[in-house]
Amino acid sequence: MDQNELKKLVGEEASKWVKDGMTVGLGTGSTVKFMVDALARRIKNEHLSITGVVTSNATAEQANALNIPLKSVDEVAKIDLTIDGADEISRDFQGIKGGGAALLFEKIVAVNSRRNLWIVDQSKLSERLGSFPLPVEVIPYGSKKLFSKFAKKGYAPTFRLDNTGQLKYTDSNNLIIDLHLKEIEHPHTLAADLSNQVGVVEHGLFLDMVNTVIVGYPEGPKVLTAR
Amino acid sequence: MDQNELKKLVGEEASKWVKDGMTVGLGTGSTVKFMVDALARRIKNEHLSITGVVTSNATAEQANALNIPLKSVDEVAKIDLTIDGADEISRDFQGIKGGGAALLFEKIVAVNSRRNLWIVDQSKLSERLGSFPLPVEVIPYGSKKLFSKFAKKGYAPTFRLDNTGQLKYTDSNNLIIDLHLKEIEHPHTLAADLSNQVGVVEHGLFLDMVNTVIVGYPEGPKVLTAR
Repeated sequence: MDQNELKKLVGEEASKWVKDGMTVGLGTGSTVKFMVDALARRIKNEHLSITGVVTSNATAEQANALNIPLKSVDEVAKIDLTIDGADEISRDFQGIKGGGAALLFEKIVAVNSRRNLWIVDQSKLSERLGSFPLPVEVIPYGSKKLFSKFAKKGYAPTFRLDNTGQLKYTDSNNLIIDLHLKEIEHPHTLAADLSNQVGVVEHGLFLDMVNTVIVGYPEGPKVLTAR
Repeated sequence: MDQNELKKLVGEEASKWVKDGMTVGLGTGSTVKFMVDALARRIKNEHLSITGVVTSNATAEQANALNIPLKSVDEVAKIDLTIDGADEISRDFQGIKGGGAALLFEKIVAVNSRRNLWIVDQSKLSERLGSFPLPVEVIPYGSKKLFSKFAKKGYAPTFRLDNTGQLKYTDSNNLIIDLHLKEIEHPHTLAADLSNQVGVVEHGLFLDMVNTVIVGYPEGPKVLTAR
């Protein structure tokens, strides 16, 4: 099965977790895109009443085009379930997100959700976090100083560039510094260290948020649950 | 002596701490304004070679008008001394800043400075922090949720409004939530708790940054040094 077909099956599987009446956080990324497509079909065919909460301008555009009613995280009383992708998931279901530079809004929606579900292909699973570079969203003013500090700590930082080779700006007009850590031994310690740095807006460590992951294997989607 | 005369004397006293060749962080606020005026006079009269690093658009405008050469924090190798105001200073020289909504850039400059000097009038001194509302700069998306969380924790939050009664936006297009805490028993614990909240960009607790404060007393400026 090719990669896209697999992502589509995972997206369709994930869309089944949405129940009538739910407020659903809609993540960002290629697998989520298939989930949003499948969800829109279910809303239409099964006459579901669903409210979506988006995490990026890209997903907002897609959901609008599919007539999924949208609200901001501040307009809803609660979010029942958020379905999002991830760039790396460790054996104990800790995650790295932000490859698409949408980590800030994704995290704001995730922490305000009663339940989070991640949907990925098999390649995103690893024993320990760190093989995917850890994105850190930073305030532009002072970002070179922060970069030097990260370099001194041995975090192997690089500034994220866009397609034209210019500094990539996020939806909130901040920059992304990617940390090439290879292996993260103590994710909680690192998370606290990063959060405490002045100029860091948010980092891509998503810890203790998820206990269910739908994974696309060559033989089809499989639901994994944390021990 | 009236309040403005006192602030002027404090600002003039502070300007004397600047030595030829220094890179100087220039804070924000009414007392700092007098310091910048005095510094410009010294630069001219004593032919000093000084580079300023600014913390707000307001101070940048003033310094530009006075021909003080300016660089961004990212363009200088080091900042020798930063002179800034404060909204409250405790007996052990911990501070609250952000009454002017410039706390983010002020803190970025402060943590990149070898030495920080605060200049205030007597009314800013207190036994323990908390009488001045603690400003927290937050991402607009999800800010109502964060507000509710602060309210549940008993932090007595209010959104900062501008002169026209609209939500106040910072230089980085974020919002300010002021926490009316009355007394902060454990500033470091509170600082870590706030930094860890998703959506918090920065908070107004400036801890362990300063060991010298110039205070305007009715009888004139006095230099206080931490024990």
